[in-house]
Amino acid sequence: MKITGTFLDEISYDIPHQNWDEREWERDFQSMKSIGIDTVILIRCGLRRELAYPSKVLMDRVNGLPPYRDLVDLFLNLAEKYGMTFYFGTYDSGLEPEKIDFQRDLDTNFRVAEEAWERYGRSPAFGGWYLSREIAVQRGRSAEGYAKLGAFCKELSGGLPVLISPFIQGVKANTDLGINASSITLEEHERQWDSIFSCIVGSVDTIAFQDGHVEIHELEGYLRINKKLAEKYHLQCWTNCETFDRDMPIRFLPIKWDKMWRKLKIAEAAGMEKAITFEFSHFMSPNSMYPSAHGLYDRYCEYAGLKNEV
Amino acid sequence: MKITGTFLDEISYDIPHQNWDEREWERDFQSMKSIGIDTVILIRCGLRRELAYPSKVLMDRVNGLPPYRDLVDLFLNLAEKYGMTFYFGTYDSGLEPEKIDFQRDLDTNFRVAEEAWERYGRSPAFGGWYLSREIAVQRGRSAEGYAKLGAFCKELSGGLPVLISPFIQGVKANTDLGINASSITLEEHERQWDSIFSCIVGSVDTIAFQDGHVEIHELEGYLRINKKLAEKYHLQCWTNCETFDRDMPIRFLPIKWDKMWRKLKIAEAAGMEKAITFEFSHFMSPNSMYPSAHGLYDRYCEYAGLKNEV
Amino acid sequence: MKITGTFLDEISYDIPHQNWDEREWERDFQSMKSIGIDTVILIRCGLRRELAYPSKVLMDRVNGLPPYRDLVDLFLNLAEKYGMTFYFGTYDSGLEPEKIDFQRDLDTNFRVAEEAWERYGRSPAFGGWYLSREIAVQRGRSAEGYAKLGAFCKELSGGLPVLISPFIQGVKANTDLGINASSITLEEHERQWDSIFSCIVGSVDTIAFQDGHVEIHELEGYLRINKKLAEKYHLQCWTNCETFDRDMPIRFLPIKWDKMWRKLKIAEAAGMEKAITFEFSHFMSPNSMYPSAHGLYDRYCEYAGLKNEV
Repeated sequence: MKITGTFLDEISYDIPHQNWDEREWERDFQSMKSIGIDTVILIRCGLRRELAYPSKVLMDRVNGLPPYRDLVDLFLNLAEKYGMTFYFGTYDSGLEPEKIDFQRDLDTNFRVAEEAWERYGRSPAFGGWYLSREIAVQRGRSAEGYAKLGAFCKELSGGLPVLISPFIQGVKANTDLGINASSITLEEHERQWDSIFSCIVGSVDTIAFQDGHVEIHELEGYLRINKKLAEKYHLQCWTNCETFDRDMPIRFLPIKWDKMWRKLKIAEAAGMEKAITFEFSHFMSPNSMYPSAHGLYDRYCEYAGLKNEV
Repeated sequence: MKITGTFLDEISYDIPHQNWDEREWERDFQSMKSIGIDTVILIRCGLRRELAYPSKVLMDRVNGLPPYRDLVDLFLNLAEKYGMTFYFGTYDSGLEPEKIDFQRDLDTNFRVAEEAWERYGRSPAFGGWYLSREIAVQRGRSAEGYAKLGAFCKELSGGLPVLISPFIQGVKANTDLGINASSITLEEHERQWDSIFSCIVGSVDTIAFQDGHVEIHELEGYLRINKKLAEKYHLQCWTNCETFDRDMPIRFLPIKWDKMWRKLKIAEAAGMEKAITFEFSHFMSPNSMYPSAHGLYDRYCEYAGLKNEV
Repeated sequence: MKITGTFLDEISYDIPHQNWDEREWERDFQSMKSIGIDTVILIRCGLRRELAYPSKVLMDRVNGLPPYRDLVDLFLNLAEKYGMTFYFGTYDSGLEPEKIDFQRDLDTNFRVAEEAWERYGRSPAFGGWYLSREIAVQRGRSAEGYAKLGAFCKELSGGLPVLISPFIQGVKANTDLGINASSITLEEHERQWDSIFSCIVGSVDTIAFQDGHVEIHELEGYLRINKKLAEKYHLQCWTNCETFDRDMPIRFLPIKWDKMWRKLKIAEAAGMEKAITFEFSHFMSPNSMYPSAHGLYDRYCEYAGLKNEV
């Protein structure tokens, strides 16, 4: 199982910025290309007031702040140059699903999608949409939001594929929330996602569950349910192999290679169709500001039989 | 708006040490010089028992521990060599303003100032005093402390200027204290600092508020009040442009360039007379142990039209 | 006082992984050798389900996960090549002493020791055992555990020495536990360890207390008690000079050199017979992913009169 896609963590939620600009990003796209990455996914085009491109819609509707650099333009140009498919991530208000004004939030993202398609839709690299809401179970009207926003994006763009990346309500998710609880049961996970998939089918094409919230020995069970449900609803089933370490007090540095290696083997055994990661540039790039990412890159290249640049 | 001054974070309160000695510090002073920094400010000459110079006063009065290197001597020599003005930061007991023995703490700092002036006052680079107490509103007898210690230092040194760097009681200050509260109102901020300035006028020459505790869209309002009050009391009004990121779970790594860029534009619009930073060596130096500081340096140099060494 | 030993932090409990493999580890053993390190101590051979070698015992008894690399084999080969003594660290279930099934945990470690001796006992570098349980006061049946496991290991291996590395119930230990308390008194520390030493004598040869949980001015008192008790029970008395900084919000980066320097001077004054560290590779190695470790290495080399490779 090889990593062939990565998120681009703009606008970052909790990962410190590397302060890269054009030259540094181009170098990193070259590194991505060299290990076979063909898909790049903008995690979101805006978070609260921070924007990845100078969106008039978001400046108007949420008082968005113009960015120093139009990153959507930059990433599309690099994706085109290096032959990759770019997924555009939708806007994230930063509010919990239960607290948003559902209709206004949806309308904002409709306008953002229109604006993005207008500005960037001619780029040959613009190849899909990523719906940035992350849930593990039904929360608020999230499934309805996926369905409506996904359908809108597909119609706007002549049917480009739509991706989501949920997480599993595992023990590490509970730790983050300060809850001392065990993982969601396999049965409840299946019940929740059977219901959600039945709601989003036709509007979402691909699911890529985050793989970092459960203990390693629990992972395969959840992945097999994801795969079974994806087949039932004719969805593509990818894995989002997290390359940061959730087990350490520094939140977050690159993952220990053994853990990534195990997750890739389990994903392969469970029949995942593609592996993407959150994310290459901080956590497994030879250009990362974290030297242990260089080590992870070296270990991954050895494992994948790739010519390592080191 | 350019950065022309920086704190020197010795003795550090919460930023891990880079373990630099003479060679590394000289290299960093060269980097400071190359981007136009003309002012260096020792954040404090001692914190609890840790000392920046072998102070007999502090060894005697607070059981201070002799340092491996006399950093005041080192920094004064480098400041002289590179044509910079050095501000000497006073001692910080580490106690809250409400908990100190006010008179004893003040006496300690009187003796420290005398000792420092005796040891280092002949250096042509010794150009001012920095009062290390940081407050956002009246606390204990802090304003009185500024007035008395500032007056003492000025008289001792033939009128060398005295600097303070308060903060704004913003939402990020409250988060640090575990308080879920909004920012202090503009009106209350003005009321507090009108009162404090009226107390310290004549003893303090320059104020440089920290710019990182409020949301970016709130900043200009506070800076304009600071400027108005500074004019009323004939104080110099600088900005302390923080170059570390307060929004990330790793506390602290270098700030995202977009945020620094916005703060500099706002400071310029609000009429700040000089921009200093906390601080160059960890967070925006090409020599920093944090590679994202190298990126911040590159972005800043591009913005400032400086020849970048990269 | 020079550092002549270091822990090898596999399997790490709370320090992020550097993602090193054979080449990187060999480079680091070379660096260790160059500053006079003659002793390397595996901190533990397994933690919960993570293993440092493919232990059939631990796969069977605790569902251990096979590692990517047999690190015990790697470390023994490097230790042999560079003329060092290797201590094998026992298994750690990750459970508190009061919560373990004492007999089953002890049996597991008996089987692990047998297996390790069987697999690796022929290596000329295999020179001792490290009992990985860390306590500061009597907890559960820990002293009995040291006595029984130490005796078992010694008998198995023809009397190879057994090492433990306890900590002092100091103010920084209490902070970690969320307890707002002062350090254990010297009297209570002596009472506790007189009792524990009386229990483990004959089964444990060397104690190396961690030196980072008390304030620097408190340290000498505790070390002198440790030394006095060690002499009473004919134990070797080393110091474990921690090279990470316990005083910073980032948990953990390399320690400030001044602090390490002071601890070494105090250890020497208190008559410690050898200084080891937790640990070289992350916190004071020129190969560390943390650049401030390179600075610490440079400072240490200057202090120790060693030819610095920089």
